[in-house]
Amino acid sequence: MILKMERNNNRNIIRKIPFETIKRLSLYLRILRNQKQNGAKNILSFEITKYLDITPAQFRKDLSYFGQLGKKGVGYNIDILLTTIENILGTYEESKIALVGVGKLGTALLGYPGFSSFRFKISCAFDNDIGKIGKVWDGVKIEDISKISTIIPEQNIKMAIITVPAKSAQEMAEKLVNSGIKGILNFAPVNLNLPKNIIVHDVNMACELITLAYIVKKY
Amino acid sequence: MILKMERNNNRNIIRKIPFETIKRLSLYLRILRNQKQNGAKNILSFEITKYLDITPAQFRKDLSYFGQLGKKGVGYNIDILLTTIENILGTYEESKIALVGVGKLGTALLGYPGFSSFRFKISCAFDNDIGKIGKVWDGVKIEDISKISTIIPEQNIKMAIITVPAKSAQEMAEKLVNSGIKGILNFAPVNLNLPKNIIVHDVNMACELITLAYIVKKY
Repeated sequence: MILKMERNNNRNIIRKIPFETIKRLSLYLRILRNQKQNGAKNILSFEITKYLDITPAQFRKDLSYFGQLGKKGVGYNIDILLTTIENILGTYEESKIALVGVGKLGTALLGYPGFSSFRFKISCAFDNDIGKIGKVWDGVKIEDISKISTIIPEQNIKMAIITVPAKSAQEMAEKLVNSGIKGILNFAPVNLNLPKNIIVHDVNMACELITLAYIVKKY
Repeated sequence: MILKMERNNNRNIIRKIPFETIKRLSLYLRILRNQKQNGAKNILSFEITKYLDITPAQFRKDLSYFGQLGKKGVGYNIDILLTTIENILGTYEESKIALVGVGKLGTALLGYPGFSSFRFKISCAFDNDIGKIGKVWDGVKIEDISKISTIIPEQNIKMAIITVPAKSAQEMAEKLVNSGIKGILNFAPVNLNLPKNIIVHDVNMACELITLAYIVKKY
């Protein structure tokens, strides 16, 4: 997928930002934050890309979409680069997330410490298990799935995480979309069929293992 | 990362298979299996790529590394395509996985139903919590982390999943590598520093949400 984004320079041109670049920016963000915590002020391209499956040239190309940010031999100022990437990605403002399916994986995500550092907050959770409904886990009250259509518009939530079994994922996804959800992170091992304007990211643990296994076996 | 792979054709040339192609093959595999379950015999490129963020041309290019598999207008025979991809990825043989860290996420992965359909088996799990050591969860006995260096070579395990907190991830990763692990799926929100011949895939739930949020906000 190719995204279009306005870029402010003296010709005010429209540049196409590849989806993969946006994805990599979030990886750079994490590495930069770690490096900053370790006391670093500047960083060279290869010091970032050595943690990733990409070349320093790819890193520099990704950043070139957003202006001249680095200096040859000196590298990048970590604070400036962090602010730039945070501004591009919009991680300075909180995003509310709905979680559907509070089984083992959903429970793990409710307590996942990595969301808050990017200002993501699971602000409501849904399940159909009467043993769970009404309980508060990790500060979030678990609601009946029949309340999706009222709570999501009320809270003006635009993104959801689906962690229900494969057989109910499509139905839940449709319910979410009808309630105003625009983006879904789907952990159910099934391909969702939704209107084209809805963004779905599938997270498939098995696919991650497959590529890993392929490389380990061959090399 | 670019992988090299031998390709048997009349010139027996070495072709470079991009890492991203291998990753996409695992996505195609899941869609093809779903389609087969639904009774389909043939499939056109766009019927696969409509579920993914890629073009039909990219799909055809990915498959072109492995020979002439489709026919214009008719598409691909699902059985042949499935067998071909399964052979390339090696998903016909069982791969044993070690799990380190049986917290909420580790527990969710122990019970994750999606692994077995690709013949991945978590065959041992490790934790440092004496309340968990010795227990059997989802058919897997939880062992003390001090046993990593004996159990992993004994079982000849080459891949591991790390689901420990960030602060102990590097230490656990080194222990695993010293015990013979060649590939790591890392869920800890930290970048591991390991020898170059070790393959690490980072799974970062927050990064997935960041790209999703970016698109939802902009479009």
